[in-house]
Amino acid sequence: MRPSGRALDAIRTVSIEPGFSHHAEGSVLIRMGGTEVLCTASVEGRVPPFLRGQGKGWVTAEYGMLPRATHTRGSREAAKGKQSGRTQEIQRLIGRSLRAVVDLAALGEMTITLDCDVLNADGGTRCASITGAWVALSLAVRKLVETRVLKASPITGQVAAISCGLTEMGAVADLDYAEDSTAEADANFILTDGGGIVEVQATAEKSPFTDEQFAELMRLARLGTARLFEAQRAALGTP
Amino acid sequence: MRPSGRALDAIRTVSIEPGFSHHAEGSVLIRMGGTEVLCTASVEGRVPPFLRGQGKGWVTAEYGMLPRATHTRGSREAAKGKQSGRTQEIQRLIGRSLRAVVDLAALGEMTITLDCDVLNADGGTRCASITGAWVALSLAVRKLVETRVLKASPITGQVAAISCGLTEMGAVADLDYAEDSTAEADANFILTDGGGIVEVQATAEKSPFTDEQFAELMRLARLGTARLFEAQRAALGTP
Amino acid sequence: MRPSGRALDAIRTVSIEPGFSHHAEGSVLIRMGGTEVLCTASVEGRVPPFLRGQGKGWVTAEYGMLPRATHTRGSREAAKGKQSGRTQEIQRLIGRSLRAVVDLAALGEMTITLDCDVLNADGGTRCASITGAWVALSLAVRKLVETRVLKASPITGQVAAISCGLTEMGAVADLDYAEDSTAEADANFILTDGGGIVEVQATAEKSPFTDEQFAELMRLARLGTARLFEAQRAALGTP
Amino acid sequence: MRPSGRALDAIRTVSIEPGFSHHAEGSVLIRMGGTEVLCTASVEGRVPPFLRGQGKGWVTAEYGMLPRATHTRGSREAAKGKQSGRTQEIQRLIGRSLRAVVDLAALGEMTITLDCDVLNADGGTRCASITGAWVALSLAVRKLVETRVLKASPITGQVAAISCGLTEMGAVADLDYAEDSTAEADANFILTDGGGIVEVQATAEKSPFTDEQFAELMRLARLGTARLFEAQRAALGTP
Amino acid sequence: MRPSGRALDAIRTVSIEPGFSHHAEGSVLIRMGGTEVLCTASVEGRVPPFLRGQGKGWVTAEYGMLPRATHTRGSREAAKGKQSGRTQEIQRLIGRSLRAVVDLAALGEMTITLDCDVLNADGGTRCASITGAWVALSLAVRKLVETRVLKASPITGQVAAISCGLTEMGAVADLDYAEDSTAEADANFILTDGGGIVEVQATAEKSPFTDEQFAELMRLARLGTARLFEAQRAALGTP
Amino acid sequence: MRPSGRALDAIRTVSIEPGFSHHAEGSVLIRMGGTEVLCTASVEGRVPPFLRGQGKGWVTAEYGMLPRATHTRGSREAAKGKQSGRTQEIQRLIGRSLRAVVDLAALGEMTITLDCDVLNADGGTRCASITGAWVALSLAVRKLVETRVLKASPITGQVAAISCGLTEMGAVADLDYAEDSTAEADANFILTDGGGIVEVQATAEKSPFTDEQFAELMRLARLGTARLFEAQRAALGTP
Repeated sequence: MRPSGRALDAIRTVSIEPGFSHHAEGSVLIRMGGTEVLCTASVEGRVPPFLRGQGKGWVTAEYGMLPRATHTRGSREAAKGKQSGRTQEIQRLIGRSLRAVVDLAALGEMTITLDCDVLNADGGTRCASITGAWVALSLAVRKLVETRVLKASPITGQVAAISCGLTEMGAVADLDYAEDSTAEADANFILTDGGGIVEVQATAEKSPFTDEQFAELMRLARLGTARLFEAQRAALGTP
Repeated sequence: MRPSGRALDAIRTVSIEPGFSHHAEGSVLIRMGGTEVLCTASVEGRVPPFLRGQGKGWVTAEYGMLPRATHTRGSREAAKGKQSGRTQEIQRLIGRSLRAVVDLAALGEMTITLDCDVLNADGGTRCASITGAWVALSLAVRKLVETRVLKASPITGQVAAISCGLTEMGAVADLDYAEDSTAEADANFILTDGGGIVEVQATAEKSPFTDEQFAELMRLARLGTARLFEAQRAALGTP
Repeated sequence: MRPSGRALDAIRTVSIEPGFSHHAEGSVLIRMGGTEVLCTASVEGRVPPFLRGQGKGWVTAEYGMLPRATHTRGSREAAKGKQSGRTQEIQRLIGRSLRAVVDLAALGEMTITLDCDVLNADGGTRCASITGAWVALSLAVRKLVETRVLKASPITGQVAAISCGLTEMGAVADLDYAEDSTAEADANFILTDGGGIVEVQATAEKSPFTDEQFAELMRLARLGTARLFEAQRAALGTP
Repeated sequence: MRPSGRALDAIRTVSIEPGFSHHAEGSVLIRMGGTEVLCTASVEGRVPPFLRGQGKGWVTAEYGMLPRATHTRGSREAAKGKQSGRTQEIQRLIGRSLRAVVDLAALGEMTITLDCDVLNADGGTRCASITGAWVALSLAVRKLVETRVLKASPITGQVAAISCGLTEMGAVADLDYAEDSTAEADANFILTDGGGIVEVQATAEKSPFTDEQFAELMRLARLGTARLFEAQRAALGTP
Repeated sequence: MRPSGRALDAIRTVSIEPGFSHHAEGSVLIRMGGTEVLCTASVEGRVPPFLRGQGKGWVTAEYGMLPRATHTRGSREAAKGKQSGRTQEIQRLIGRSLRAVVDLAALGEMTITLDCDVLNADGGTRCASITGAWVALSLAVRKLVETRVLKASPITGQVAAISCGLTEMGAVADLDYAEDSTAEADANFILTDGGGIVEVQATAEKSPFTDEQFAELMRLARLGTARLFEAQRAALGTP
Repeated sequence: MRPSGRALDAIRTVSIEPGFSHHAEGSVLIRMGGTEVLCTASVEGRVPPFLRGQGKGWVTAEYGMLPRATHTRGSREAAKGKQSGRTQEIQRLIGRSLRAVVDLAALGEMTITLDCDVLNADGGTRCASITGAWVALSLAVRKLVETRVLKASPITGQVAAISCGLTEMGAVADLDYAEDSTAEADANFILTDGGGIVEVQATAEKSPFTDEQFAELMRLARLGTARLFEAQRAALGTP
């Protein structure tokens, strides 16, 4: 049995609570089991230098983890004076994933920054960040449409992410920390509600895996993200 | 009238919710009106190099603010690669304030690190951090006593902090952001339940102030911290 | 037609020249068309702190690009004082990929560092780095076996990498810079000669892609890496 | 008796020697007993970005200590690559203290930077820095008035600083290093010649102190700064 | 006999191969025995801030060494986050040396950056960098003249560099690593084909040396650079 | 005539005042005309890692310049977060120069650090630093001999430094800032009282110079350092 008692294809309880941040244009606190990430969307009326004057907008992300989000205290990146390779990798991934479902030309010369800060960690923080950040982004965009800054939403679809992995029990969906730290392989799937693939990152932690194993991980990811798309729509109050 | 409608000597609604962090030995989410700070206490069985072999413990603190805790997004210190002077000043203050009510010899060769991370900011974040961190520290110490790592608590009293200031309305207690950003002077008082002064930091923002004004700020601080000591005891379930 | 005139499934001319570095235990200059990467393997008789005393070895990698490897001069990371997120992401990938085909316990308490420095860049530098680094690693290990430092090679298989992508012409193998900078999606496949998958990183640059498209990219990767495994064996003079 | 043999309310011999620096618009070497600080005032015809176009000036400070100003050599902050929290705290304090007696609007779009570099340290370096910097600032302003860059001095009063503390002998004025390192509490008072309070920083180093003790420290500070105001006027040759 | 079997005044085999870099405006791979340096010249149509609007150009250099150019692997400066004092000293020297033979006014508002990256090191890397960089610079300038960006070459002469030293065998020319690491003194001479001295850096590694010894080192340097000027001309195909 | 009215071979008034620093084992304030450098020698009973266990000592140096030592304020290296290439070059030179006249084996496992901090700059700061640091070192060593930590002085001779240059007036000794900033060439000579050469750094700032010019600079350096050796002996009270 899985450490959590879940079925192989069962994801953890997901909750997406809007409005946790008082000041952000959009924000949610997303919970995937014991993983809790505060996602905020901040809108600024300008774009980075490399985009200036092109009439296009930008969506980017930053990621952080509170020092005691984890079992033992990790050192604070601000105190160490630099972001780890892992942090940079994750925040680049979040930004890319969201840009895949935003029409940047329709956004216009604006930047939306998604901050994903992990308050409690129990595996899958980058996936929860993407799933939550999409809702925070949607809330911020809704406000821009309501206040007529934008005529229509530049968001072209939903995007959500899930990690699946190969464990002693076989392929399982939505790894928690206990599974993640011992899995033979793990894969992050960032998928759209329209069935598209935005990003796949599959890594053999111990030994190489097969095409069949990879296909099974992908199947679990489709199932799992279907549940996440529902949760996103529920948080936004859309059908 | 004050922007918030409060009486001159009225502090904001305070709530101290233990257990927000899943892994920390002690944690609270403290709210002072719109200011929300997550305080966690992490225990480690060793001390910094300068204390090794002296049989004494250490209590220290780190402080951070999520990028969108504020009205407009601030840049992330981890991304900038250094902590601001303000951040360092605050975390040094929190550490000093807590050490003033801990018998380090009685703690033994252990370090307790208080992480104070501001989730939402509306003025007074350093004071809320101190008040909340004391409860997180007390919870961690309680666990050490319950598990017989310590024979008795090394905490010698309660400590809490409040900012008071001189505004157009005169001296007022517990400044929120609207008041803090326009005050003529502001002062942070870190006081103990036994009537002692741990630290006073009073600063004229516009022009120098008088002894009488200073005495009135101190009076308000005594009143306000009395309320905070109650809230701390309530959070701990002690009389 | 592809900018290079290649067939859709044709990879660029590959050459792997051993011995470019005078001092390294193993080294090659790998060329994939206009991309040239110097890969060196350096052996040290100790392991990083987190592995000490476990009787296991470590394989890690660093990646760099000479400032004028590219069309316009890029700034030197040593001068800027930090490695970019992209650099860190790539060097973590190279290290993981090689560890997937090394039995670290059989290596013993030794570290082998692969340095991959791009002398000329025309797309696919991370893939060329992995393919070349595996040969450099093999040469260093061969020397350790010949000098009886190791009884047998801890290398469990060949690993090679190729990038494939979706362009206006459809799915193509081994993107060069001209294709890479305009592709709708690109994917890096790190595969073993035994048919195993070590890592897959597929990214939609413009819009999400489908399962069928992904499968076609994977098919091209199998074809392409078959050619690379041959080139690796030829460089080592093994059948 | 105090280690120095001074009476409880006696400050150390103070000397303020103008003109130590050959190039600065204003400079003094201030000595408070064995503490020696070189204070220079540098005038620039522009303001920091956050003040541009507002017609106001800026006064700021930087603080440093030569590596061997202390009993044992301290490491050089330039070599370590960052300023300590203590350094930043002190230079922010010096800047704030001087701005409290300068009419920034009357200064116009100019920046005056006070550099306070400790050549020899024997306690009270931040206070000596403030007291000396005010004279350096006054000398620079005098030059601006003499050369008609400014019509009148924007300085609204004198500011000086002194540290007082609670020792085994009771409350004492102007702590030297021997007293400072063992005091139960110490407090820095930054006061104006008009009787105003610019800043108070009182810290319990060992255990909390009382209102009465605090009042006695303040009394000593009034006495001590009266002496410092005289010394400042003497250095400037004003009555 | 010298470790290499060379005569006291014999320099190592020198080869200067143009065109190693695919993208640079000028490039060479220079080999001095076992020392190999890739020198590239990059042209940009602007100058650093301190030169703007003066109608003059700039020539500058950066220097690096691949981690395994040396007998044992050195750490990567980009990973350490800063360039060593040695690196900065060398790149400043290369830039100064080249500027001594360029008429910056005739260059016009352009910057030419010489990147000198050591692929294999066996002593004398800074000298090889200067000698090779002059050829790379000449190739880039030739292209600017051919494309009529410049009317005439702003290069006023040849510059080349050689290290000579005092060893147990007496004064010798063109030290390799074995000699360099044990020499009693070593000196770098940067000379022009017209007989001029651009820079001399002579250092006693063990004990001070005499005027006569210095004169002998200079004589060897004249002989050696004569050979290098020939090699430079051969590489450019000029008489 | 030279800007200062000096004869071509005349150095500036030199004064070397011991004891400026209260705590250092040895210290001097050296003045060469308007250039003033505080040199302190700090003794520590251990050596850097690369020398441990070899029974040898180490002599090293650090260099700094106060922000307003110069005509216009320079930025503080501690605030910028790194030492400039120039600073590193100078402090490496000072360390090398002093080690050339110290028998490190006779010093034993001790480190002496020379801090050279420029209080006022008018050209020639690196030379003044070396000349002064030798006296500070000698004072520290004298104390070690007097307290019997060392049996005899490990100092093998005097070392002093002077800059000479080619100006419109011809070769001149001991450049001040006005000359240094316009010289066609300048050269730093670090020489011993026994007639030995420790280091020569000659640089053509505008166009290459000749052997004859170089010889004349060397002649002036011999004359000038003779005067400096006298001043060093006078400061030490030795014949």
